[in-house]
Amino acid sequence: MITCSVFVATSLDGFIARSDGSLDWLDRANLSVSPGEDCGFAKFFSTVDTLIMGRKTFEQVLSFGEWAYGTTPVVVLSRTRSTKGWGSALPPTVEFSSEPPRDLYARLATEGRNHLYIDGGQAVQSFLAAGLIDEVILTVIPILLGTGRALFGPLPRDLEMTHVETHVYEFGFVQHKYRCLNHFSEPHPR
Amino acid sequence: MITCSVFVATSLDGFIARSDGSLDWLDRANLSVSPGEDCGFAKFFSTVDTLIMGRKTFEQVLSFGEWAYGTTPVVVLSRTRSTKGWGSALPPTVEFSSEPPRDLYARLATEGRNHLYIDGGQAVQSFLAAGLIDEVILTVIPILLGTGRALFGPLPRDLEMTHVETHVYEFGFVQHKYRCLNHFSEPHPR
Repeated sequence: MITCSVFVATSLDGFIARSDGSLDWLDRANLSVSPGEDCGFAKFFSTVDTLIMGRKTFEQVLSFGEWAYGTTPVVVLSRTRSTKGWGSALPPTVEFSSEPPRDLYARLATEGRNHLYIDGGQAVQSFLAAGLIDEVILTVIPILLGTGRALFGPLPRDLEMTHVETHVYEFGFVQHKYRCLNHFSEPHPR
Repeated sequence: MITCSVFVATSLDGFIARSDGSLDWLDRANLSVSPGEDCGFAKFFSTVDTLIMGRKTFEQVLSFGEWAYGTTPVVVLSRTRSTKGWGSALPPTVEFSSEPPRDLYARLATEGRNHLYIDGGQAVQSFLAAGLIDEVILTVIPILLGTGRALFGPLPRDLEMTHVETHVYEFGFVQHKYRCLNHFSEPHPR
């Protein structure tokens, strides 16, 4: 049984980035974070065996220069699957996939993956809409941006959640963990 | 000095109602709430001397049948200011106003009001955009709706907040209080 997790920071009004992808507001907020504090990310990431992200997020991650994901396999969702143009910048752990979320999920299940980490707005939205997300770990930054790239998007129907825990950091970030209660019909491969 | 507060429930994805105004999801969530628990609303409301809401919210409040706001003055934001058609349904404590948020705020200040409670998406958005909100008390319901009427909207620039407190209810609601840090230039009447 695969667990599908989201671990992401948003503004109080639900944006993960400005409209142009900029994270300046998050970088500024991070200046207030205690040294060495990663809000549980390293611990979370150590339990992940596959990271799935959209192409926009991937391009942004590459632009950071340093590859942050070690040897963990990364699947980049991309309609074209073309790796042309990436050249030597492409880490060997990265594969491109044009599979719809359920097909990708099913394939990774047969490959024995156990814990998928879904990152980036479009990837999260498509996996939520497909009823594949098991838990959402949300770190809320105390700022309103007004506009930007939304974490959540349209859904085929309501998705009920269970609140698991909330942690308040002394620097004003608030981290919540929710479990998704009612997966949509047949999200899991049989 | 006036304090301007927002006290509102939203879905985890930031909606205060479905697109048609429906609150069925909130009513259903409220079934899980312990009897007598109002998540601090009565205590909060006892400190309010003026309630400001948009016309949509007002129409919804009227549709509930019972008037929930006692003798507290209510200002309904409405371009037309016409009370025609309301007839005897209009409580005597209600006034209509077409004043822009800053003008209304300035007038209420000169009238000696101390604590404004801003309710409804459009009213909250216009007061936030005008830099008039001091605190936001947000009760997050553990559900994703996907679409609906958003609490937050566009802003002229970032609005930094300070996290004040978070309370987790055993039925899964999570209530946050944030203060607005950087009001926009000259939001207050001089």
